[in-house]
Amino acid sequence: MSSTIQRLSASEAARAIQDGRLTSESLVAACLERIAARDGELAAWVHVARDAALAQARALDRQPARGLLHGVPFGIKDIFDTADMPTEHGSPIYRGNRPRADAAVVALLRQAGCVILGKTATTEFALVHPTSTRNPRNPAHTPGGSSSGSAAAVADHMVPLALGTQTGGSVIRPAAYCGVIGLKPSFGSINRSGVKQVSDTLDTVGLFANTVEDAALALNLLSSRRIPDFAAKAAAPRIGFARTSRWKEVDAATHAALESAARRLASAGADVRDAALPAAAEALFEEHGPIMNFEAARALAWEQAQHREAISAELLIRLDEGWAWSRERYDSARQIARDARRQFADLMRGFDLLLTPSARGEAPKGLTSTGDSLFNRIWTLLGVPCVTLPWGSGSNGLPLGIQLVAAIEQDTALLAHAQWAASALA
Amino acid sequence: MSSTIQRLSASEAARAIQDGRLTSESLVAACLERIAARDGELAAWVHVARDAALAQARALDRQPARGLLHGVPFGIKDIFDTADMPTEHGSPIYRGNRPRADAAVVALLRQAGCVILGKTATTEFALVHPTSTRNPRNPAHTPGGSSSGSAAAVADHMVPLALGTQTGGSVIRPAAYCGVIGLKPSFGSINRSGVKQVSDTLDTVGLFANTVEDAALALNLLSSRRIPDFAAKAAAPRIGFARTSRWKEVDAATHAALESAARRLASAGADVRDAALPAAAEALFEEHGPIMNFEAARALAWEQAQHREAISAELLIRLDEGWAWSRERYDSARQIARDARRQFADLMRGFDLLLTPSARGEAPKGLTSTGDSLFNRIWTLLGVPCVTLPWGSGSNGLPLGIQLVAAIEQDTALLAHAQWAASALA
Repeated sequence: MSSTIQRLSASEAARAIQDGRLTSESLVAACLERIAARDGELAAWVHVARDAALAQARALDRQPARGLLHGVPFGIKDIFDTADMPTEHGSPIYRGNRPRADAAVVALLRQAGCVILGKTATTEFALVHPTSTRNPRNPAHTPGGSSSGSAAAVADHMVPLALGTQTGGSVIRPAAYCGVIGLKPSFGSINRSGVKQVSDTLDTVGLFANTVEDAALALNLLSSRRIPDFAAKAAAPRIGFARTSRWKEVDAATHAALESAARRLASAGADVRDAALPAAAEALFEEHGPIMNFEAARALAWEQAQHREAISAELLIRLDEGWAWSRERYDSARQIARDARRQFADLMRGFDLLLTPSARGEAPKGLTSTGDSLFNRIWTLLGVPCVTLPWGSGSNGLPLGIQLVAAIEQDTALLAHAQWAASALA
Repeated sequence: MSSTIQRLSASEAARAIQDGRLTSESLVAACLERIAARDGELAAWVHVARDAALAQARALDRQPARGLLHGVPFGIKDIFDTADMPTEHGSPIYRGNRPRADAAVVALLRQAGCVILGKTATTEFALVHPTSTRNPRNPAHTPGGSSSGSAAAVADHMVPLALGTQTGGSVIRPAAYCGVIGLKPSFGSINRSGVKQVSDTLDTVGLFANTVEDAALALNLLSSRRIPDFAAKAAAPRIGFARTSRWKEVDAATHAALESAARRLASAGADVRDAALPAAAEALFEEHGPIMNFEAARALAWEQAQHREAISAELLIRLDEGWAWSRERYDSARQIARDARRQFADLMRGFDLLLTPSARGEAPKGLTSTGDSLFNRIWTLLGVPCVTLPWGSGSNGLPLGIQLVAAIEQDTALLAHAQWAASALA
């Protein structure tokens, strides 16, 4: 029974709880059982709130539903403050840290009757230095990062939904590597209060799920954005195939997967045309780094001043780069980003969404790197909503993803189109 | 001697320390003496780090200068995290709160050899509910808010520089009410990590100072923006007199002060012309509220869920308003702000700066309200840099301010022009 329960999607589980066919307690217990069986190998979690989660679930089982995900457990990336659990930011500097308050979105989840199952592994300050988390599809491979634990936990059905953040490619890439759905909403969709800041211009709260509907329900809860009418027959979208100037940097399997997805979506009725990104948007491949590193160097000023010896060598290199950029260089990068956002909005008058790679290829072997954010960073800096859907596989048999991108604030429409695309590809 | 010392500007004091004519210890001691004499009445400080500040100063006196403000003390608004002092956000919910880390800018100040003198009074979460701080120019009047303590402390020469934040008008208005210089830099100039979030779109770290040069040195330290060449003879600027559609809401004294400033600057050589704001910028008078309240409601979700009874009635009204706004209304307000930023950039191709009121009038009597942010909110939402300079006085003899506004990222040029204007008005 429990192995069936924890494979339910969040929306299926919530409906079953509301209909009295399932209790939140049994759902949470099934998740805990899966974690007990699997997390020794996968290391997706840094803290599991076993007793608190069960107690919370039992309390919720006695209450009327507070929301559409009442009784559903969430995993929380360990850069979100939690008052009743450690919040360590993937860094020894914050060992045992207990913030005074929950992050705003953690409070919103609790308020809506969701269960906080625990904290998932994050790379050091959601940047480069990896966790020991393994990819559930093949434990010899990285799950991607920085939201490594959230991606692995959802992919392994340890929890139906998890929160992550994306500054470069920290939601879309690990979701693609682990074969789940990742949503990086429009910049500013989900509140960041109580989330460890790395790059104020880029940090975006996102979600991991096993279905598009689950991602839409969670986004609605956290951002007040409308849920698409999934029952309605969606019109086939106008899709721009955006190979970008970096197309030569995707591997052969990803190349083939994207081309086959484009053909398949076209034969399902979509109007698929090639889309060339505007010049300023293409420039963001190079402008993202200066912005991220300039801001991270300052955001982590206390850590550098007080605990430099406890920062990884990889991160120190990035932070030193951040200090080396001039304010003028940084301002010019931000100006290019502003221009790019305007030009991109113009481009998107002709398309409902773009189709583009989620990553350069499948999850790399080994745990020393979480992979390359090349195909994520420009969308993060544009602030536009992105979804990755699992599609195809690489030469090692690991999952690949296709990334769908819409105009800013078009998150609800993007999710409707993503559902259409998922059906067309199924 | 000590009454002379604490009247030195920060730049004068820093030069004296560097030349060996003054010690940081004696400067800090003079500030502490002034606080001991005056703060019983003014209530600008919620925590004075007497012993730590003296020890820090003595240590700095034994070191070579680490920066242009080596040895200079700062007041820090009590919504910035400090690991060695309480951080209470002006709310009983955070009584005795001790964060794990310093806010990034506090760490930057320490790194540059500045002394953290203590924490200054803030309204509840830097929003509406006032402090008991009094205006040093007349203690029967409000100093303005939300950065009430920082404005009062600098105006009363308890400390030469202080940090504040502006979400509506929380730097420019209290600076004008207290007769000091306030600087709200371009959005994104100064890092916000470790600053209590109210409105992600609006919250901007700013500064209080007694001279334009002091503000420029502090901005350089905190943002890496260039310091203007104050020794060079600045060209007279092209000034747009922006009365705005709300001109009828300024009082007679402010009306007269702005008109006289415009005449005076013109006779000093500035090209002063009337400037009409673009339509989208004018619309921001109405669009600021929905954005601020929508975001504040979410940013303070934990406080509402766990400690609703400890939130002021005034704030609960604003938060309930924030929950009542739809996502679509909020998104539309943000779209208008994006349009306004573009139109404003076009307008500013014709002007070096705008001249506009800092507030509707002098500081209101009583401590029940910190005044009205009407003439600040559109600039905050535009993200453009603003300086207020003391000029003229109201019918109660309290100071008035003129506000100078430049195009985004033109902070260094704005400070150069502000210095030119201060000389022309002197």
